[in-house]
Amino acid sequence: MINALQAKSMNTLRQRHNPLVTAVITTMLVTPWMLHANLVQDTPLSTVSTNPIAIALHGGAGTITKANLSEQQAQQYRAKLEEALLAGYAQLKAGKDGQYAVISAIQILEQSPLFNAGIGAVYTYAGDHELDASIMHGAERLAGAVSGVKTIASPIAAAQAVMNHSVHVMLSGSGAEEFAQEQGLAQVDNHIFDTERRLKSLQKAKRAIADSQTELLEFQDYKFGTVGAVVLDQQGNVVAGTSTGGMTAKRYGRIGDSPIIGAGTFADNDSCAVSATGHGEYFIRYQVAADICARMAYQGLTLHAAADKVVNEVLVEADGSGGVIAIDTAGNIAMPFNTEGMYRASIDIHGKMSVAIYR
Amino acid sequence: MINALQAKSMNTLRQRHNPLVTAVITTMLVTPWMLHANLVQDTPLSTVSTNPIAIALHGGAGTITKANLSEQQAQQYRAKLEEALLAGYAQLKAGKDGQYAVISAIQILEQSPLFNAGIGAVYTYAGDHELDASIMHGAERLAGAVSGVKTIASPIAAAQAVMNHSVHVMLSGSGAEEFAQEQGLAQVDNHIFDTERRLKSLQKAKRAIADSQTELLEFQDYKFGTVGAVVLDQQGNVVAGTSTGGMTAKRYGRIGDSPIIGAGTFADNDSCAVSATGHGEYFIRYQVAADICARMAYQGLTLHAAADKVVNEVLVEADGSGGVIAIDTAGNIAMPFNTEGMYRASIDIHGKMSVAIYR
Repeated sequence: MINALQAKSMNTLRQRHNPLVTAVITTMLVTPWMLHANLVQDTPLSTVSTNPIAIALHGGAGTITKANLSEQQAQQYRAKLEEALLAGYAQLKAGKDGQYAVISAIQILEQSPLFNAGIGAVYTYAGDHELDASIMHGAERLAGAVSGVKTIASPIAAAQAVMNHSVHVMLSGSGAEEFAQEQGLAQVDNHIFDTERRLKSLQKAKRAIADSQTELLEFQDYKFGTVGAVVLDQQGNVVAGTSTGGMTAKRYGRIGDSPIIGAGTFADNDSCAVSATGHGEYFIRYQVAADICARMAYQGLTLHAAADKVVNEVLVEADGSGGVIAIDTAGNIAMPFNTEGMYRASIDIHGKMSVAIYR
Repeated sequence: MINALQAKSMNTLRQRHNPLVTAVITTMLVTPWMLHANLVQDTPLSTVSTNPIAIALHGGAGTITKANLSEQQAQQYRAKLEEALLAGYAQLKAGKDGQYAVISAIQILEQSPLFNAGIGAVYTYAGDHELDASIMHGAERLAGAVSGVKTIASPIAAAQAVMNHSVHVMLSGSGAEEFAQEQGLAQVDNHIFDTERRLKSLQKAKRAIADSQTELLEFQDYKFGTVGAVVLDQQGNVVAGTSTGGMTAKRYGRIGDSPIIGAGTFADNDSCAVSATGHGEYFIRYQVAADICARMAYQGLTLHAAADKVVNEVLVEADGSGGVIAIDTAGNIAMPFNTEGMYRASIDIHGKMSVAIYR
């Protein structure tokens, strides 16, 4: 019955909305991107769609300043964000359901050692990697999430499999891995996620924890490097996805906001789609992703006003640092953050690309 | 810094609100409860508080009808609900913070084999018990949750320990157990949760799964026996807690709504506190607990209107079965459910007790 329901839901994904018919037919123009700080590409990308499409990504928020990021590093981040952005955008241009755009974009970030997701994920206190991911589709509010998985090559793909092929929404640990294996997803050794840079972060964090005899410092070392994507597809659906390695030196099977529907990820065609990055505990307590959508739906706020309210007022008042990317069914994009920087990128409904790091 | 923040938050719990000063001083009158169907006790209980206090509990919703529950069984349920209710109420009368009322009430239900929480928890497909619980305090939105724990005697107490003594909000599996042990919480063998009745349910479910070669039937066997409590304390705080054994024959480390802040449990002194019971996947996707509070806060709905809208309209339209208990800072109580029955009980601000099962 449930599988039938889910199948039905998937079938109706394309039927539920009457997307705005907006003719955005522009000239093909692909140039090598000029990779300077906060690059904004004003030349429209090609799109053959008669319906608006748009995409936004984040690669984490935190203490990211020109003082602690070299221009060479910044260029690497911008190039990878752009690569992911274009991969997701290509899916949207091809008329694919938004979930495929989210997966395409996030998988490129998962495969890059630059970000705290997949390869490049931070280490737990025990010295391995426990990954979390979630995805939500705005049409029928279908959702899937995995938490604490160690041997799944692409956690976001596992979350998608949960959404599309399980009666459940959230699977955890070895059970989630068993499910992913049954679904034919690639299994890997946990060490595939190792990077020298994150190992150094763990060692530093463990020394700090040992010195202070507390857990407190585990928050200070990590840069909230979670990755995420939000899209508007040609069918008028908004979809959000998030993938993360969690926090350096995490213990106790800690689950952050990334795999929590409503906290780190949310999507509803009646309001918006949001992916968050930041100090997860606050994002859970303040229901960041769902609250932005609720304020749009119930208070009549614009996407920008709702996202800004939650990130720059509610969270700031609570001392919760981080940021979000958000998109609505008109293709508006908001990317507020209350930290010094957030790796972010977007292509709006006019095909205008933006890749930025600092304020 | 975080511990200091949490300590500060705890210290300000009593200061943030200016509770309504309502003189509810009534005559002491404790009588043996007449245990008949949908008993409503009209005689006010004693209270010496000058501020309103109130409490509501649930013990699960589902296909609970007079046809499949004997009068003797119904009496057992009502007696246990009343015992839990009075235990929680005693904490409120004594002026304790609402979290202690929630814990007192839920622990009695966890210790009873009648409910799907603690002793009496359903079995996983593998034949053991994986328990989930969460608690949230409305003053500063502090929250704690544990998921997939096997050896913690009282999962709700572990959730409370996470809220009060951890920098995290949600801990899972063996990590959560390690934390609970460090906190001095009682550790038990998983078999302490065994009951003959739930073992039969597992056997029946596994036969059904084997016959159908699907997971589908795992939904049909269990009665959503999650337990929960919501309270208003003398300081004007609303607090919610939920504890569960999950679903019969669950696999893959499935996490339901009970340990998910916003889905199964939510509390905010600016709106209300909610504990849910039902088909967890829908409660996650529809953010049931947080959505009721959001509709109060943002749409100006009354508690009853908000809870009724979500349970009897949004969830019904989505085919999500279950119910909630909800309380606001004025002490209003709503207990809507869209199933045939829900084990529920409450004492309102006038001291009026209600214990009910059927519609």
